[in-house]
Amino acid sequence: MHRHFDEHLDALKSKLTLMGSLAEEAIHKAIESRKKHDSAIARRVIDGDGRINTLEIEIDQAIVDLLALQQPVAIDLRFILAAQKINNDLERIGDHAVNIAESALALAASPFQGQFLHLPEMADLAQKMFHDALDGFIHGDPALGRAVLELDDRIDDLNRQMTTEVIRLMRDKPETVEAGLDLIRVSRNLERVADLATNIAEEIIFITQARVVKHHAEDHPDTAD
Amino acid sequence: MHRHFDEHLDALKSKLTLMGSLAEEAIHKAIESRKKHDSAIARRVIDGDGRINTLEIEIDQAIVDLLALQQPVAIDLRFILAAQKINNDLERIGDHAVNIAESALALAASPFQGQFLHLPEMADLAQKMFHDALDGFIHGDPALGRAVLELDDRIDDLNRQMTTEVIRLMRDKPETVEAGLDLIRVSRNLERVADLATNIAEEIIFITQARVVKHHAEDHPDTAD
Repeated sequence: MHRHFDEHLDALKSKLTLMGSLAEEAIHKAIESRKKHDSAIARRVIDGDGRINTLEIEIDQAIVDLLALQQPVAIDLRFILAAQKINNDLERIGDHAVNIAESALALAASPFQGQFLHLPEMADLAQKMFHDALDGFIHGDPALGRAVLELDDRIDDLNRQMTTEVIRLMRDKPETVEAGLDLIRVSRNLERVADLATNIAEEIIFITQARVVKHHAEDHPDTAD
Repeated sequence: MHRHFDEHLDALKSKLTLMGSLAEEAIHKAIESRKKHDSAIARRVIDGDGRINTLEIEIDQAIVDLLALQQPVAIDLRFILAAQKINNDLERIGDHAVNIAESALALAASPFQGQFLHLPEMADLAQKMFHDALDGFIHGDPALGRAVLELDDRIDDLNRQMTTEVIRLMRDKPETVEAGLDLIRVSRNLERVADLATNIAEEIIFITQARVVKHHAEDHPDTAD
């Protein structure tokens, strides 16, 4: 019975690792498509989201089956409950990739040349945070998780700077209103990816140390937009 | 032992019901503060979010304890796993209430009189969907859940209309750029509240009928922004 449980738990870990790779590739490709105004890559990201959504449902079902099979305790129970959350976080990261790819499609279809401002730095940061969070999850490494948490303020600052600079741009040149909104939208999507990476990092610390770190030392709420 | 389990399950339901009431009140007050430019009400919403965040952690802990105590099956197991998701959805709704209250604070401090466009209709819809989703959850009524799902397209349409109209407004009158961004932000927060109400409605159907309805018949991804 116990070996049976371990096999199921390993299968759950494999599926989550696959889900993480798919979400990471989706974000990477979406950012590439936005940089290059490449609608072919953007369309592949959008088409690929169905697979991430299907995998989310399979993982949720695997969690129900695993808990129905045996009564896990301590670290196994914490892992399974965290897996349900991380699964949802990864599905949402896939949705943000789709949003960014849709921005790339709109840019590819317009005569306007996209602007960047702080987007490249934000894209690098969000990808690094997400990559490290996944790495920390796969290797059960809370130090990687903590490093991710430390980067979150920087991307929040950049997102705020983007808004301030874009407002100035749109006021001065009303013809940039749509492009400005697009910049704000992509900036927010990257900031949300970083937030979700932060969620995953918090779960790593919960799994490995049974300690809840969310909502600690926060003087502002999560930016839930 | 079994009675002990039932008591813990009832306690979990009570806590989730309280969390639902707090989130519903937060959204209601936030919308009121935005309508009336009332910074006192807005500040109460922002200050009250800490209680929602604390309750989220307590509920997650109650779920760990409940699963460690006994091995629930069938409807009890589905309820507990759904509870973890609904708990997170409610916490996020609290964050959206804070965002809307922050918009009210900014408006109260500016000489500009806030505009509304479709916001009143969106606010009514989002509140109705969230109220019915909570009601369906408390009474285990999948019919209420399905009714919520049917309203989601309407609020998505209104959100898109808002964006189109605000772009026109900002192009014509560059002095409305900041006010326009605020309208788009509040609109998006209301649309996200409706999405989270939809998540809760899907969980009600999962709990009562063991059927996954998410990602069905969707020709567009969740708007994850």
